[in-house]
Amino acid sequence: MLLIFFTLLGAVAQSQKSVTVAVDNKVTFTYKNDKAQKVELMGDFSATETGLFKKSKKRQMEKQSCGTWTYTFSSLPSDLYMYAFKVDYTDSLQLDPSNSFTLRNVDTYYSAFVLTGGVGDFFITQQVAHGTVQKVWYPSTVNGMKQRRLSVYLPPQYQSEASRRFPVLYLLHGSGGDESAWLECGCLAQIMDNLIAQRRCEPMIVVMPNGNAELDATPGESPYIQAKPSANNMTSMLGKIEEAFPREVIPFIDQHYRTIAQKQQRAIAGLSMGGLQTIFIAANNPSLFDYVGLFSAQTTNLMGGFAGGALNKVAGVMNKINNFFGANTKSDFDHVALYKDINEKLTAQFATSPRLYYIAVGKQDFVKKLNDNFREKLDELHLPYVYNETDGTHSWSNWRKYLIDFAPRLFK
Amino acid sequence: MLLIFFTLLGAVAQSQKSVTVAVDNKVTFTYKNDKAQKVELMGDFSATETGLFKKSKKRQMEKQSCGTWTYTFSSLPSDLYMYAFKVDYTDSLQLDPSNSFTLRNVDTYYSAFVLTGGVGDFFITQQVAHGTVQKVWYPSTVNGMKQRRLSVYLPPQYQSEASRRFPVLYLLHGSGGDESAWLECGCLAQIMDNLIAQRRCEPMIVVMPNGNAELDATPGESPYIQAKPSANNMTSMLGKIEEAFPREVIPFIDQHYRTIAQKQQRAIAGLSMGGLQTIFIAANNPSLFDYVGLFSAQTTNLMGGFAGGALNKVAGVMNKINNFFGANTKSDFDHVALYKDINEKLTAQFATSPRLYYIAVGKQDFVKKLNDNFREKLDELHLPYVYNETDGTHSWSNWRKYLIDFAPRLFK
Repeated sequence: MLLIFFTLLGAVAQSQKSVTVAVDNKVTFTYKNDKAQKVELMGDFSATETGLFKKSKKRQMEKQSCGTWTYTFSSLPSDLYMYAFKVDYTDSLQLDPSNSFTLRNVDTYYSAFVLTGGVGDFFITQQVAHGTVQKVWYPSTVNGMKQRRLSVYLPPQYQSEASRRFPVLYLLHGSGGDESAWLECGCLAQIMDNLIAQRRCEPMIVVMPNGNAELDATPGESPYIQAKPSANNMTSMLGKIEEAFPREVIPFIDQHYRTIAQKQQRAIAGLSMGGLQTIFIAANNPSLFDYVGLFSAQTTNLMGGFAGGALNKVAGVMNKINNFFGANTKSDFDHVALYKDINEKLTAQFATSPRLYYIAVGKQDFVKKLNDNFREKLDELHLPYVYNETDGTHSWSNWRKYLIDFAPRLFK
Repeated sequence: MLLIFFTLLGAVAQSQKSVTVAVDNKVTFTYKNDKAQKVELMGDFSATETGLFKKSKKRQMEKQSCGTWTYTFSSLPSDLYMYAFKVDYTDSLQLDPSNSFTLRNVDTYYSAFVLTGGVGDFFITQQVAHGTVQKVWYPSTVNGMKQRRLSVYLPPQYQSEASRRFPVLYLLHGSGGDESAWLECGCLAQIMDNLIAQRRCEPMIVVMPNGNAELDATPGESPYIQAKPSANNMTSMLGKIEEAFPREVIPFIDQHYRTIAQKQQRAIAGLSMGGLQTIFIAANNPSLFDYVGLFSAQTTNLMGGFAGGALNKVAGVMNKINNFFGANTKSDFDHVALYKDINEKLTAQFATSPRLYYIAVGKQDFVKKLNDNFREKLDELHLPYVYNETDGTHSWSNWRKYLIDFAPRLFK
């Protein structure tokens, strides 16, 4: 009786869905607004569109009777989609009022929708054994703060096998992200639960620190109230996060969790800015990681300071600030010892024979050229790596897929 | 240098704040939109306004030059405020695009802002020792599901004193809430961190199960994708949650955490529907809890079935469903053994001399009369309780304050 009752209510709720899926993944988005003159659907619906959401293609929705607007894709690939509506007479995006699943990317909230039947099946909670997610504060001195927050994923086996110890993947977010980014946009817990249930990857602990030097925790959890996350958090690129990582994060995790505290059982990976941090953390600490992953890494300052493409802004802001203090921009970065002598450090790191150095990037990503340059450097130095070149751009759609490709290669 | 750098950036960010506070808590909300003809500020800014957000008072914002709209309160009490903007030509609410702190209440997202300098100081992350928050799945059979999700708060001492055991507060949410509700709108971790740091309450574990029988987890974490939380989740009031609680939740927690598994070290409290569940869980299991808290409890079905005010809807929907099955509504509830013989059960419960039976409700709350009736029942039965009657209505503003009043009374 109760099960039928539940199903009946489910059917009632279903009729109000704002995203409907027909055969061949024909997907229709619906938004009710009888006052609007124009409504556009915003979202990253194509692999070749920019991952910078606010610049994404606007799709004009069609007004139907009863003040309902619709947009139909004849076919969409299975994925997690983040979308919003842009209504005339408002500058900001409108969340889907019929959808309670919302995700924040940097400073903006979007409605989220998983289209199953493919890779999207990894992004939903399946009827498998689930891991545990923790939000933990640890002592830190970065930027004069006393504590920083990190997220931890513990595999289902951590609970069911009370004395077993586990390998650890340290997974870093990008500029503007925080300790929630991989769990939210990255679907980390769902992906790991599903990979482990399918025996495609080893049960492992995943640690997601906050690598944003300006904000110690996600909005609402940081003492810095009203501080807004920004994709140009320049202080995160001054080497402080990388410097603190082996002193603050790893010992804390090894002390408080049942880890296997060995190079062979420790991996590090990061996306975009987190990829940059990954390169330097691993190269400066050659005895720590046997597995390294770069997902659309910001390799910019390996290529001769911060002059390159996307990080021009950093140099610009640093210039302003340094003018204020009468200092010189370039020297600020050059004086970070951690960033120096990268060729020698990479050579020393590879001399310890790491089991995997993994580089993934999309053909349309704005860091593609920088990654080409970085791979050229590795080739010149005769340092071996695995390269995964995909379609698509600087987007969570790619980073989730890189995780699915990367995690099964670890600790085997 | 880095600290100054950080401060400078902070100052830059500050100039873009959409909520500014002047002397005497004069608060101005700002929203930029040069296309709108009319903008209203929505939010629960007064204790006597309804806690049902969508029915809250609309405040007409004033258009300033440069397309900026403002609304100024001459003085607001310190609190956490949830707000949004209503712009002409849109039916739905608009989040504050300059504010990254967002909270979901039932199915709707609002921008959030903490006004410090009073009770609001409990709602922000202070520079004190922080506890850990966990999201955990546990085996459950409610409504034919196999697992349900709960949240756990571990006090700072759980990490720093590795062999110490702790008392447990089980804290239940209201209709439409889930395992995230107390952590998000309820600021549970911040309040507990601050109370414990001030030595105003004992270090304790707080367990927040998902008491929504229709949804096993918060949106994005449930296998039921596109299911929308509802404040009328009727199946949560059929006794199943209360029945499963002592069999599924408590043993799981006692098995996996360093609890003190004794009545003297176990408390239960709940708001609204969670208050209803609290009454019946405690009354049906007199040996389990020495501390019971009811925050704006939905005591309706203690007063002769589900006929009373707010739950008429439940009876209505049940009628429809039962007509479908040819059954009778009232008998469905009456047949729930757990709800029967409440007078006898309460008397048996109080015969075990619980240390605290706490009832809190606001003068303007729609459940005030029902709570009066429930207290009359307790008086008639000569069962002692502590009563905290406050200003205000059925709102998170009150529930946070009740927690601050209740938690220090536990385990002393």
